[in-house]
This record gives sequence, C-alpha cells and structure tokens, in this order.
Amino acid sequence: MNRTLATECKNKVGKPVLLKGWMNQLRELGKINFLILRDRSGYIQLVIEDKKELEKVSKYYVGTVIEVEGEVQESKQAELGVEIIKPKITVLNPVEEAPPVEYNKDEIQAELPTILNYRPITLRNRKIQAVFKVQATVLEAFREALRSKDFVEFRNPVLMKTPSESGADVFEVKYFDGKAYLAQSPQFYKQMMVGVFERVFTISPVFRAEKHHTNRHLTELTHMDGEMGFVTSLDEVLEVIEYVVRHIFEKVNEKNADELKLWNVTTPKLPDGKFPRVKVKEAFEMLQKRTGKSPDRKLDPEPEDERGICKWAMEEYNSDVIWLTHYYKNKNLYTQNEGEFSLSYDLLCRGIEWLTGTIRIHEYKKLVEGMKKEGFDLKNYEGYLQAFKYGMPPEAGFSFGLERITQKIFDFDNVREATLFPRDVERLAP
Amino acid sequence: MNRTLATECKNKVGKPVLLKGWMNQLRELGKINFLILRDRSGYIQLVIEDKKELEKVSKYYVGTVIEVEGEVQESKQAELGVEIIKPKITVLNPVEEAPPVEYNKDEIQAELPTILNYRPITLRNRKIQAVFKVQATVLEAFREALRSKDFVEFRNPVLMKTPSESGADVFEVKYFDGKAYLAQSPQFYKQMMVGVFERVFTISPVFRAEKHHTNRHLTELTHMDGEMGFVTSLDEVLEVIEYVVRHIFEKVNEKNADELKLWNVTTPKLPDGKFPRVKVKEAFEMLQKRTGKSPDRKLDPEPEDERGICKWAMEEYNSDVIWLTHYYKNKNLYTQNEGEFSLSYDLLCRGIEWLTGTIRIHEYKKLVEGMKKEGFDLKNYEGYLQAFKYGMPPEAGFSFGLERITQKIFDFDNVREATLFPRDVERLAP
Repeated sequence: MNRTLATECKNKVGKPVLLKGWMNQLRELGKINFLILRDRSGYIQLVIEDKKELEKVSKYYVGTVIEVEGEVQESKQAELGVEIIKPKITVLNPVEEAPPVEYNKDEIQAELPTILNYRPITLRNRKIQAVFKVQATVLEAFREALRSKDFVEFRNPVLMKTPSESGADVFEVKYFDGKAYLAQSPQFYKQMMVGVFERVFTISPVFRAEKHHTNRHLTELTHMDGEMGFVTSLDEVLEVIEYVVRHIFEKVNEKNADELKLWNVTTPKLPDGKFPRVKVKEAFEMLQKRTGKSPDRKLDPEPEDERGICKWAMEEYNSDVIWLTHYYKNKNLYTQNEGEFSLSYDLLCRGIEWLTGTIRIHEYKKLVEGMKKEGFDLKNYEGYLQAFKYGMPPEAGFSFGLERITQKIFDFDNVREATLFPRDVERLAP
Repeated sequence: MNRTLATECKNKVGKPVLLKGWMNQLRELGKINFLILRDRSGYIQLVIEDKKELEKVSKYYVGTVIEVEGEVQESKQAELGVEIIKPKITVLNPVEEAPPVEYNKDEIQAELPTILNYRPITLRNRKIQAVFKVQATVLEAFREALRSKDFVEFRNPVLMKTPSESGADVFEVKYFDGKAYLAQSPQFYKQMMVGVFERVFTISPVFRAEKHHTNRHLTELTHMDGEMGFVTSLDEVLEVIEYVVRHIFEKVNEKNADELKLWNVTTPKLPDGKFPRVKVKEAFEMLQKRTGKSPDRKLDPEPEDERGICKWAMEEYNSDVIWLTHYYKNKNLYTQNEGEFSLSYDLLCRGIEWLTGTIRIHEYKKLVEGMKKEGFDLKNYEGYLQAFKYGMPPEAGFSFGLERITQKIFDFDNVREATLFPRDVERLAP
C-alpha cells in the first residue's frame, strides 16, 4: 500500500490507508485511546481500542516514529473531520526517554534560552513549525516578486579580502597564511551586478561582530537584497519595494492562513495606496510635539523613536508600515547626499526598522572623491570601483532582514524567535 | 515618455520610444554609424546619421550610460528585426577611459585569470552574462522542483561551534574571545530539520579550506541541499533527485534557449526512463576491462575514472548522466553502511561528480556507537544527537554543487568560469 499523508485522509473516508509519522501525543483513557500522529502535512488522530496495539507504543515517548495501517472514518470532533480507526501500528524508531521539553503542548512551557538549546526538538512544536513555514513563504515570495520585475538572482561571495563596508564589527577568518573577512552585506557585489543585469537580487547570510546582548542583535542574519539601475526618482524604488512587501504578505495570507490562525495574528496592515512617508527631520519634530522629548538630530532614530513613529503611522494613516526617508547625512561611501541629508529610506514596521536602502552614488569621480575624503584606501576597492569607472547607471537598492520580517509578522519581542538557529555573542549551537 | 526596453521595440514599429542602457559598441562608418545599446532585456541597434548626435558619444568609451529618444523601424538584418532611427542621445554617465579588456566582443581575448580580475566588467560580456542567467534559472528550478514535492525551504547557519563534518579543511573564525568555524556543509542542520518538516531544502554557501590549485576546487561554493524522511529505498530518493535534474534542464531549456544557443551547447542528455546506475565495484571492474588499469578499490574514483565511467554511460546508455552507487564504506559519521559498502550515490555528469548523497543512519544508538568508535567527541554534537534521540525517521539526502551543474551545462574545463566571484587559495577579490 502507498503512503497516505494525514491531510489526504479527508478524501479517503471508509478506505484503508497507510500512514507514517511521529507519535505526537498519546492519551490513554483505558478502553479508548487516542494517538495523534504528526507527518509533514499535519496532524491526525488514531483511535486505539486494541490493547495489543496500545502496548506497542505506550512504553515509548513522544517523537516515536511509527507506521500505521488503519481505516479512515468521519469524525465531527476531529480537527481534519476524519480519524483513523482499527490501527495496526509498527514502531519504526522508538524514543526511549522523555524529551527534556514538552514540545507537543500548544505552548512550550520554557524560557527562550531553553527553547533555543533544544531547537531540534522544540522546532517540532506546532506553533513554532508555523513560524518557519511562514518564513519559507517569505523567501519564496520575495524572489517571485522581484523576478516578475526583471530582477536576476545572483550569488554573492561571503569571504572577502576587505571588510565590505567599514572595518568595525567584522569577523576575521584565518585564510591559509593570510586573513579574510566575512561579508557584512552583499552591498558591493549587488552594485557591481547592476552593471551586468541592471536589476539583481540575492538572499545571503551576513555577519555582524557586534557585542550586543539585546533582543534585536544577531551575529549571523539572512538578508534579502535588491539593487536596480536606471532609477530616476526615490518614488520609483519605493514603488518596487512596496510591491515586494505587498506580494510577500499576499502570499503568506494565501499559503499560510492556518499558520497565522494558530498564532492569532494577521500580517501587518498596509494602506490601500502608497505607504506613508515622512522625512527624518519631520518625524523628529512630530515626536517632539507628541512626547516633549527632543531626539538628537545628528543621530539615527533610537528604538524608542521608531516605536513612536510607528504608533503615529497607525493613528494617522491606519498603517503598520511607514517610510522614514532623508536621514541625516551618513558616512557610508556609497550613499548620495543632498545637503545635510542623505537620499535614504528605511521602512519601519510595527515599531522596528525592517528594510533599509539608499540612492547610490553612481558617478566614478564623485565616488572616488568621497572615498578619499573619508580616508578609504582605494586599493582595497579596486573591483568595486571598476564597475563605476566603466559605466554605471543611476541606481538604488534595498535590503530586507528575513528574521525581522518574520518577527514582525508574528510580532515577537525577540528576533531569535524568528530565527531557526540563532547566532549571537553567546550562542553558536546547535 | 516611459522607458521602453530593447526587446519591447519589436511591438512598437513606427513609434517613438525612450531607451536607456549602455553603449555596447559604436561603429563609426562616416555617413551612417551604428551604436549597439545594451539594456537588461538585450541589445538593439541605433542608426546614427546626425553628426551632432555622434559627437555626443564618440569621445567616450564602451559602457557609457545613455538615454535615447528615437523611432523604431523594421530591419531585416538587425538581430531583433527592428532598429532605432533618428536617435537623440543624452549621456547619463560617460566612460572616459577604454576598458582594460574588450568585453564587448563575442569572445573576450584574455586568459581566465585576467577575466576574473576584471569580473565586474567581463561579466557584461554577452556570453558570460548568459552563463549566469542560466545559473539563476538553475537556482529557481531546483527550488521549484523540491517545493512541488513538499520540501520546505530553511536557512542553515554558516557559523558553527564545531566543524560540521571533520576537523580537516575547515576555516577558523575569530569569534569575540573564542573561535567559530565556517560550515563545510549544511549536513547536520538539514538532518535536524527532517525531524521538523520531513522534507527540507536549503541553498547555502559552504566553505572548504583545501589548499588545492586545480580547476575543480574553490574555497567557497554554493550547495543546493535536500533531505527527506520516511525513505524506504534507494530507489525512492534517486527518483526524487532525477525529477529535480529533469526539471532543472527543462526549465533551462524553456527560459534560456537563447543563452544556450549563444554558446552552442545543449543541456546534458538524459535517458528517457530511469538514469543508468552502476555500483562502484562493478564500475571499477568495467574500467579495468576497458582500460587495463586497476583502480584502487579502497579509494573513491579518481577524476580519470569518473571520465571513463561517463564515457561508458554515453556509449552504453546514450546518457550524459550516470549513478555511481555503493561506494566503499566511508568514515563520515552519518552514512549507513552495508557490509563493506556504504548506501551512497553520486550522480556523475559529463565526466565529473555532480551530486552526492547517502542513506543516513537514523537510529540514535547506532549513530552514537559509530561516533564513539570513530573517536568523535559526543559533546560537540549535542544538538545533532538530540534530533535522533527524540525520534528520527529513516532518511536520506543529497547535495548539488551549483557551480558544477552550471559548469557541466556549458561543459567548461574550469569551475571558475561558472562562478560569479570565485574564491580560491589565491583569490579573494573582487
């Protein structure tokens, strides 16, 4: 007999089936006993009345891998509308010790560090599974959206001879007799690729050697980057990004309705038309009016400011997202400035910066001039500068944090909850 | 006027258009001059008769970024069947120096190291562009094939506390006051994830600190990994992989016919039914008969052997691919052995190993026993072992090298030609 998945049983009422999966729960009530089987499609209930069958599994623990022949029967109470009766069970791989955390409960009763220590089994929790099913959809939707706009996927290297943006907070690698560094972003490569394909994207790990112990810092992250040439206005880039964001949420709602329901969450609220936009200067003035606090106008907004701006966006525009543009001039080598401001844009969502991007300097001379002024050693940027010397269109780009997007869909406090295997100052395993 | 892409001009005969792109070639013939404009869609010819217009660009070099208003006219000789007449040109960003390599020729007249040194501009060569358009399709098709078989995408970490497979050939990272290592493969993580989603895949950079100076070794590669649970036979895994391979080539043929034509290549020839299979022992016997050479049966096949086996597969089965299975027992900690052989399978294609995989050990006790025997320190594998202790189905997996697949589609001698920004013992830039 061929294997039937749990959710396929709906179409096999009255028929014999062969199921395979994990024993996710066993309720022994005496005469009638219930075993919940988990497989890749979902969860289904087996009704065990035969004592011999019960004995096969009752000595083992949650996670025991089994094979079941049984019959599908309608059941109003069962989640799938069907259950399995008269099961004949074969244990394929027993679990002989109780798991250290009860991952098969609706909620795992443990602190986050414990949950992360036992990640290989806590990921089997239904609600936690849901988070990473949604994350898989985010990855797929991001690519789909950009491909539909003529963006070509490429693979950027992670090992670099020169730290990508600045020397600070970069991990050093022993590279044979010399050194290499881990990419802090695919920034330089995506810009080079604009000279090749005009519109490109990459999904890549990025690394930050920041010694922060906060709920928003990781040392390894997944960034979803896009870069586009022949940009004529800020509007044009923001439009593409807004399309990507809409597509991600549409796809999540379409593919992951069950997962969202399990958490009782909805994807962030987007306005009908363009996303609201506010310049940093104006946002700071607004914050001052509302809170009395005067943010330091030379610095980027602090977490508290970002929350204040998002709160205002919801009240004013009924939107969970808001563009914060025209940050005060910054020192990265590739961003275009305009007077005391930079042509930059961050998308905030539910209190946190979620995407960041800028219009780039595309003129070789201007780029070199700026780099010299800031003390960059041009020799280290030979490849990057080639791309500009030999013809670069006006261009702009953006970078999403996969973990943050996932975090904000579920509105988690800690980005680690939205990371499969988080890496931070203290954590490198599992 | 809105921008029109080069290939869209076919539908705008007789109409005015606004084009944007790079000057890819300028042929000055006197009265009539031809400028080939490159944009993300392709190449189109402008016919310049107005001297004033010619002067705007003739002082600049290939790569100069321009904007053109002109009229579309049919042209039998032109590649697209149309050309642009009466162009009014605006230079958006000039190139003021001749590029160090003539990338706008059909073939770049330079050795590979030079081509790689100037990657940001040599990638603009039409044939080289084609390689990486195909590579983008391979990535997309791999994911598409596996998603259609219920595989869930996940992101594995690259920073590891313990080297993933063995201590050899691993890069060491300075990690705050301690050390970390770069993943040699996502092996452990994909196996852990089988306990969560049953079927998973990931596309990820992997790192090999091998001091080899060959045409097949890189220090950073892209691996496309899949892993599946509830596998009952070798057949079942190979069938999934064969489906993935077929889908990749179908998609490449569908999306990249032009790119293949440009190189005058076809995707590797696949047999109508199942891919041919041969056990390593039998392959060695066959090689001995055909060549007189007797390969050392304790070792893996050498490059020369792989080429011999592929030659035989083509003669015998009219196939560019062949499964080589049942390698002699190896020492990795996770592969199931059967007597003196391992339950392993490599897919060879056009003379090279292209994909590798094995049936895994899924029983906790057997895994621990084997690791102890081989001297692995169990403490370093806590997370990995958790997944098995608390319930793992019979499972198997596979790993494709993205660069090698691309290499074999174009039948390049050197894997670097199929790598955007190769990393090797000597090369870390651009």
